[in-house]
Amino acid sequence: MTATDKTKFCRLIHQPSAISPMSNKETQVSSEELPIVLVHRLPSFKLPSKPSFNDHLLSDFHLLDPHDSPEPYDSFMSRHAPSIRALIIVGPTPITAEFLKLLPCLELIVGTSAGLDHIDLPACWSRGITVTDSGLAFSEDVADCAVGLLIDVLRRISAADRFVRGRMWPVKKEYPLGFKLGGKQVGIVGLGSIGSEVAKRLSAFRCSIAYTSRKKKQSVPFPFYANVCDLAANSDVLILCCALTEETYHIITKDVMVALGKTGVIINVGRGSLIDEKELVQCLVRGEIDGAGLDVFENEPNVPKELFGLDNVVLSPHCAVMTPQSFEALLQLISANLKAFFSNKPLLSVVSNE
Amino acid sequence: MTATDKTKFCRLIHQPSAISPMSNKETQVSSEELPIVLVHRLPSFKLPSKPSFNDHLLSDFHLLDPHDSPEPYDSFMSRHAPSIRALIIVGPTPITAEFLKLLPCLELIVGTSAGLDHIDLPACWSRGITVTDSGLAFSEDVADCAVGLLIDVLRRISAADRFVRGRMWPVKKEYPLGFKLGGKQVGIVGLGSIGSEVAKRLSAFRCSIAYTSRKKKQSVPFPFYANVCDLAANSDVLILCCALTEETYHIITKDVMVALGKTGVIINVGRGSLIDEKELVQCLVRGEIDGAGLDVFENEPNVPKELFGLDNVVLSPHCAVMTPQSFEALLQLISANLKAFFSNKPLLSVVSNE
Repeated sequence: MTATDKTKFCRLIHQPSAISPMSNKETQVSSEELPIVLVHRLPSFKLPSKPSFNDHLLSDFHLLDPHDSPEPYDSFMSRHAPSIRALIIVGPTPITAEFLKLLPCLELIVGTSAGLDHIDLPACWSRGITVTDSGLAFSEDVADCAVGLLIDVLRRISAADRFVRGRMWPVKKEYPLGFKLGGKQVGIVGLGSIGSEVAKRLSAFRCSIAYTSRKKKQSVPFPFYANVCDLAANSDVLILCCALTEETYHIITKDVMVALGKTGVIINVGRGSLIDEKELVQCLVRGEIDGAGLDVFENEPNVPKELFGLDNVVLSPHCAVMTPQSFEALLQLISANLKAFFSNKPLLSVVSNE
Repeated sequence: MTATDKTKFCRLIHQPSAISPMSNKETQVSSEELPIVLVHRLPSFKLPSKPSFNDHLLSDFHLLDPHDSPEPYDSFMSRHAPSIRALIIVGPTPITAEFLKLLPCLELIVGTSAGLDHIDLPACWSRGITVTDSGLAFSEDVADCAVGLLIDVLRRISAADRFVRGRMWPVKKEYPLGFKLGGKQVGIVGLGSIGSEVAKRLSAFRCSIAYTSRKKKQSVPFPFYANVCDLAANSDVLILCCALTEETYHIITKDVMVALGKTGVIINVGRGSLIDEKELVQCLVRGEIDGAGLDVFENEPNVPKELFGLDNVVLSPHCAVMTPQSFEALLQLISANLKAFFSNKPLLSVVSNE
């Protein structure tokens, strides 16, 4: 079957027709007549109940969730496969080339995260499948969290809270000094939507910004370093905001940390595997860098136990995106992307194949 | 003795003459010939060793510290009183009208903190004594800390750190959602140098700013509320940056907290007694406000024990000013004020008697 044949086959089997999803509420279309969308999730991942997927999507789409059905997964998938042109991924559920073979008619994958390292993007693109991500929905919240972690590490806020709750203030009297944020040289690794929001915020604290990314950005006033080691050597702080790809896996090596130096701080709101975590732990324990604020880890939810005793690290359970407001924005984006897809209109947050 | 007589008496006893303090290092003036400055501190307060008072001041001034002398305090003070025209206060050491009687020739009190509620200012002014404060030395660091506490409370960063260190991530899987900072209405109580720095920073997070202060400020673009209760009713967050005075004691009453509402957050980087602390604890425990970030308390170093069990509060041991950089800036300011005073030049951070 050629690609064109396949498209015809898929369209014949399932024709969502020219329903305008916007009008479903008024015309009380039954769910069977709505455009079908597969919910792709690991059995352990649940759809969030608040803000509710259902409120946003059920009136406009017929959601098929194999893990909600008593039917065995394989049977469910082969029965519905011909009608599935679009799917939503819940959280970081993997999409492999093997999985894609189950869905010969798939045209759209709606990702729900900023990082898409759980999706085999080349396999999608070779099949002509379009992938969307969370667009700008999470950018501000992740940037806020990055700045919060940085202030926390420099000014030792979580450690101060531990000091007070541990009844140490009346005993020790003095709390150790922190370090000033103003005037710090901040190197941003990955100046996409999150990195740009971080830069905007830290400029208001009188930090100097520089960055590295795949390419120099023409419209950006900040100094560009082609090499992360050079960026580290010229920075007091590194903030990791880039995607995890083959190129960025362990981009923060021991050499980069040594270049950052003994007073340097690393903030990671990207993915755990951007850093060689074993080396990071050693650098923190030995004082080869000064501190770290980590929202992500290589082997989540497991965190290296050596970090639990350190006051110069702040540990956060991969929750930089986690506000009701960002989920609300994400659900609106998912809905808008699906509506655009089923109306043959331009999608809003397509991942670029470049 | 009239004021004029007293000045003559004091000048006769001690004439620092027209020494230019800038030239002391070159001319190797002995410390006895330098302008005398009293170090006023409680015996329990030490001068910080790093950054060092000595490095900044000893080459230019002859520091007299009664608690460093074997001589009894009263005898030391009465022997040196006629030669003391200037003093430095270490930390929040009180200055009472009674204490001022010991120093008939005192003309300048160099304060070393942003808040001066430990100084009887009317008593100083009635004696014609000039008082200086920490000027802008601490403003940025306190503002950074206020923003850090706010992000921490909204995004539950210290609580997240506690969750991870307590090995709860692998057990509970999901960490509760925080709240978005962007779009929040922030009410600043006291738009002086600290409040203005807070406003500048939070504008970069897309917060809307309003404020209350003694008077509306003409050059400020933010909405002004004459009444703190009205400000609270129109805010999601209150940030307390004002001085503690008779007028601002317990300015945050239960009524203000109720006006702020169940989703409201209070950040205090001013003084503990700006808030009715008993009512604050009740409001937090009963969920009448959503959270608080507190660097200051009514009865430091004692913190109400009810707060230790709450995840919606962040507790910090009065360390918002505590960076080496801000102390360095303070020491330069102290030195510059003293040099200006002994050279009859304008002082840099005079507290206004208005």
